[in-house]
Formats: sequence, C-alpha cells, structure tokens
Amino acid sequence: METKRLGRQTVHLKHAPSVVSYANIGGRMEGNGPLALHFDELDDDPFFGKKTWEQGESAMQSRAVRRALEKGGLQADDLDYIFAGDLLNQCIGSSFGLREFGLPFYGIYGACSTMGEGLALSAMLIDGGFAQLAAAVTSSHFCTAERQYRTPIPYGSQRTPTAQWTATAAGCCVLGSQGEGPYLTHVTCGRIVDLGITDVNNMGAAMAPAACDTLSALFRETHTRPADYDLIVTGDLGELGHSVVTELMGRDGFDMGENYTDCGLMLYDRNQQDMHAGGSGCGCSAAVLNGYLLKGIRSGTWKRVIFAPTGALLSPTSSFQGESIPSICHAVVFSHTKEAN
Amino acid sequence: METKRLGRQTVHLKHAPSVVSYANIGGRMEGNGPLALHFDELDDDPFFGKKTWEQGESAMQSRAVRRALEKGGLQADDLDYIFAGDLLNQCIGSSFGLREFGLPFYGIYGACSTMGEGLALSAMLIDGGFAQLAAAVTSSHFCTAERQYRTPIPYGSQRTPTAQWTATAAGCCVLGSQGEGPYLTHVTCGRIVDLGITDVNNMGAAMAPAACDTLSALFRETHTRPADYDLIVTGDLGELGHSVVTELMGRDGFDMGENYTDCGLMLYDRNQQDMHAGGSGCGCSAAVLNGYLLKGIRSGTWKRVIFAPTGALLSPTSSFQGESIPSICHAVVFSHTKEAN
Repeated sequence: METKRLGRQTVHLKHAPSVVSYANIGGRMEGNGPLALHFDELDDDPFFGKKTWEQGESAMQSRAVRRALEKGGLQADDLDYIFAGDLLNQCIGSSFGLREFGLPFYGIYGACSTMGEGLALSAMLIDGGFAQLAAAVTSSHFCTAERQYRTPIPYGSQRTPTAQWTATAAGCCVLGSQGEGPYLTHVTCGRIVDLGITDVNNMGAAMAPAACDTLSALFRETHTRPADYDLIVTGDLGELGHSVVTELMGRDGFDMGENYTDCGLMLYDRNQQDMHAGGSGCGCSAAVLNGYLLKGIRSGTWKRVIFAPTGALLSPTSSFQGESIPSICHAVVFSHTKEAN
Repeated sequence: METKRLGRQTVHLKHAPSVVSYANIGGRMEGNGPLALHFDELDDDPFFGKKTWEQGESAMQSRAVRRALEKGGLQADDLDYIFAGDLLNQCIGSSFGLREFGLPFYGIYGACSTMGEGLALSAMLIDGGFAQLAAAVTSSHFCTAERQYRTPIPYGSQRTPTAQWTATAAGCCVLGSQGEGPYLTHVTCGRIVDLGITDVNNMGAAMAPAACDTLSALFRETHTRPADYDLIVTGDLGELGHSVVTELMGRDGFDMGENYTDCGLMLYDRNQQDMHAGGSGCGCSAAVLNGYLLKGIRSGTWKRVIFAPTGALLSPTSSFQGESIPSICHAVVFSHTKEAN
C-alpha cells in the first residue's frame, strides 16, 4: 500500500478532509475579550444552567456540538465518530457532555493539545475511508480546573506572573470527506518531551520544547519553512512559552517570524484583563480555532495555517511526588484551497 | 473512495493488521492466579522498584512496552505510533511511563476499555496506510486506583459483594501491516451508554448495557451470531456483569452460549483469592489479552475471537455530585488465519 507518511511524525492526507462546520462557546471573561465577536455563544453564568461547575463544563461541550451540527445542517446521527477529551479527572466533561448523543465515541487525553489530537485522528479516519464525517470537541472551565489542579477558588490565592488563566470555553469542529474547505492537509503527531521543568505555575516553559519538537518535525518532513505559512498558532503557551519557542526555533535555524502567535495570547486582552501570561486550558485553543481562526482561513485571510496546540501531561499527584512536567504538541495544517495541498 | 464501514459502529479492515508482538506484566495477586504462567513478567514488589505506586504503575507500562518490543525483535523507533491511557488522573501512568521512548504518542481515555480503543485506532491507522507498526498499551494498579477512587488502603475498608478488584497489571500489543497473525479483522466503536446505575461498587451492572450495545452492533453489522465465534470475551464486567450481559443479549435474541466469558472472571481464582465479583482495571483485560488470549488465538485454540473490554466513564467527583455511571465498550475481532477474514 502507498504510504502516506512523510517522515517519523508527519502524514500527508491525500484526500484532505474539509472543515464542514465548527462552533465555540465561552464564559464571561471570554465575552469581555478581543475575540468576543467570534463566539457562537457566550454565557455569563459559570454553571451554564446546571448545578455544579463540572456539569456546566459538560453542558458547554454539549452545546458546542449541537451548535456545530446546527450550523452545518447536520443531525447527530450524521457523525460517524466523535473524539473528545478534557482536563477533568477521568475526562468527565466529555463523557457526561456527550452521552446524550449516542455517537460512536473515542475518548482522548492530550491535556490542552486535545483539539489537535482530535482533529488529527478524525482527519486520518476520514482520509483512510473509515468515516465520512467526524467531529472533535473539547472544553475547559476556570472553576473546575482551578479547584482540581490548584486551590479552591474561595481561597483567593495569589497567582505568579508566569501563571496562565484557564479558559471557560469549548470548541467543536466537524470534518468531512466532502466540503468546500478549509482543508486539513497534514498531521504531525507529537512526542512526549520533558526537559525537567517542575514549576507548575510555568506551563509555558514546560510545554515550549514539545512545541519546538513538533514544529521542527513538521517543517523538516514537509520541506517547508515558517515563512511558507500565513499563520502559525501554538496553544496555550502564553507570553513566556511563545518567546521560548521563538528563541529555541531560531537556534535551530527556523525564524518563526511575525506570523507566529499563540492562542493563549489571543483570547484575552492582557492589559485590561488580569490574565498574567495568557490563557490556557483545552478550551482556549479549541475556542480560538473554532471561531476566529477557521473563519479567517475560510475567508482567505490566511491561506495556509499551522495549528499546534500543546498539552502538559502532569497531574497534581505527579507534581506532589516531585516529578517534572512531560508535555506534548499535536499539529495540523489547514489550507484555504485544495490546490495548495 | 470505497467505504470500509459495515454499519453505524463497525468497520471491516480489508488489509487486516497482524499482531506482531505482545507482552504483559503483573503483580503478586496476578502471580497467584490461574493465568500466572501466561505472564511475561511478575513482580512481587508493588512499587516495581520505584518510590511511589504511581511511579510503579508507569514502570509497569514501560516494562510491558520494552518486553513487547524485545519479543518482536523490534526497537522503539520501529513503532510509528503508540496509543496509551490508564485510570490515573490525567493518565500519568502513560505519560510518565512512555516519555523515555520518544514515540509519536496519542493519549486515549476509555477507562477499562482502553486496550480495545488503542487496538481499534492502531488497527485503523495501519489499515488506512498511516503506519506500518503501532502499539497499544495500558495499565492499572490496585494501590493507585484504590486511593484515587475509593479510600486509602490503610483504612482497611470493607468491600461489597459486587465490588471488583483492580488488577495490578499492564499489557502491550504491537500491530503491524505485515505479520503471521493473529489478524485484527473488525473494529466496533462503542457509544456512551448510561442506564442510570449509580452504585460505584457495582460497575459490572453499570457497564453491562454498554457491552450489549457494542456486541449487538457487531453481530448485526457483520451478519454474525455469537456461535460464529470460538470465544467472546468482555472485560471487566465480573460475575454480575457477565450474567447481566447474558440475560440482556438473550432477550434481544442473541444466545451468548458457552463461549462467552469475561476477563474479570479469568485473572483470579475467585474461590482462593478474595476478589468478590472478579478483577477489573485497564490492566485486567490488557493482561489477559496480551498473554493467555493472544497465545491461544495464535496457536489455533480459538480461530475467531471477540475482545470487548468495557469502561466506566465516571469519576469520584461525578459520583459525589449524584451522577450515574456512563459506560462504553470497544470491541475488536481477532482471527487465527487471514482466510477467515
């Protein structure tokens, strides 16, 4: 059989799946940010109409999926697979958020890289002939994440300057074998990278080496350079991680240039909103992609875009036991036209 | 493009991937059980040479992968992908267990159905031309699970009769586009099923409906009956869940017959070992498959086998909030010969 692998980590999708629909939902902070107009739904209620924050997070996933189906003129039964995961222990945001749909479901865990992983697997199953339509969805919630990873919110703990703010948001993307684009042309699978960072308030520095590993592989294996893309977006490295990636890639001979940004730097106005190093959480890159970014790629503002969300694969338990922070980055390439494929 | 889908949930792998290698590792209880001779490694030390149980669980995964590579005459770099997940919060058994290998990694979460999900995705990526070799690995550990899901072990809590025992075990399976079998011929993707069971000490009953949903889909979509298989193995429903599946399937017109068993009933001697309703945990079905079962399919003891591990997608948080237990079952079909495909 003809191989689709360009190298160790990258595959080229010969029948590049099309983005068929997408939707996102955010909370109050996201509604006060610069991307507010690029959300399908914004809700001031952190419970999203439910009794607990965790149930609220599930409700967000459910609403993001419904909205994406609706915008695409689809029924749930039209989807052949749904890939989902989140930050909550045992990924309950996804299992409770999606149980009502009765869809063939593959649970994934990539921390904040989850949207990249879900898109990668959806795209390969479509390109491989296993599905006509597949969706990827993920979410995060400031209140559920804060009490699970850090301290209960009423404690009012001080945050360090390198800390990021977990987005209360969800995003869903439906890919299909048919459609009018944007097209998902390449997938670069991440590897677990751990350079020994142990500061849980500095995820950007922990995840930056994983982003570099994946981006380097993508450029090398597709024989492209950063300048070949109109936009390169990591997520959610924040300010510090973004600068580490720029520096490390530069040392390796890749000038990331002006077109390189990060979802963690886009979701909030860091001057007006007290977000320190930027946004984070599975929902951050998912919401930025499934609104602002895909709109721009569809309209042709950007012709060719790398979306490379990053995840920190730690847990409070691993940190309490003195472990460092293994990280991963899953990248996909979107193209405005099929020709550019 | 030719479709590989036989129905809503099942795909037929035209270029059925072969099992290239497999390995398993267990702890003391598993070494005292009836499958002791079918383990590659048994270790009496619950820490597996590390300082904490969580680190020990990661060590198990790492050793299972190394052993599977070694038995297959492979290097880590030969693998195109590795799929892994476990029960620990944020799946740290996998991220810390596999970080040393530097492999393209997709993290998955299917609770105790994880080995089924990993095999399904590995097989589809191989059949789809995205990989030559891919591995699935998972683990569970009695001590890490007990303190995370229930109570710290030194409390000596009483267990209910329907409770199961989380296996301390790991299993790894390497699939390839070439090989001498057994072959993985069909994949049936599970859907989230929740019939409202809330008793966290009765996972068998909670997961049984998910097993029925997936098995029914498999039989219906492949036009087969239970009698067409030499062995049908769910995992880890235990005694109660096994009887619920037998009854519910019977009502739907599927006589599960004598060839239906469950990994949770196989790993321990329930008369001699105080396991109540049976074994459980991602490592239970993974260890039973990647030793006893695959040996038997390879040797021809069984020609055609359904492996259908089940997972309960709850967390302590969801249970504390009064939620029921959503469950899932991912099934794959193994065949001794390519002809039977």
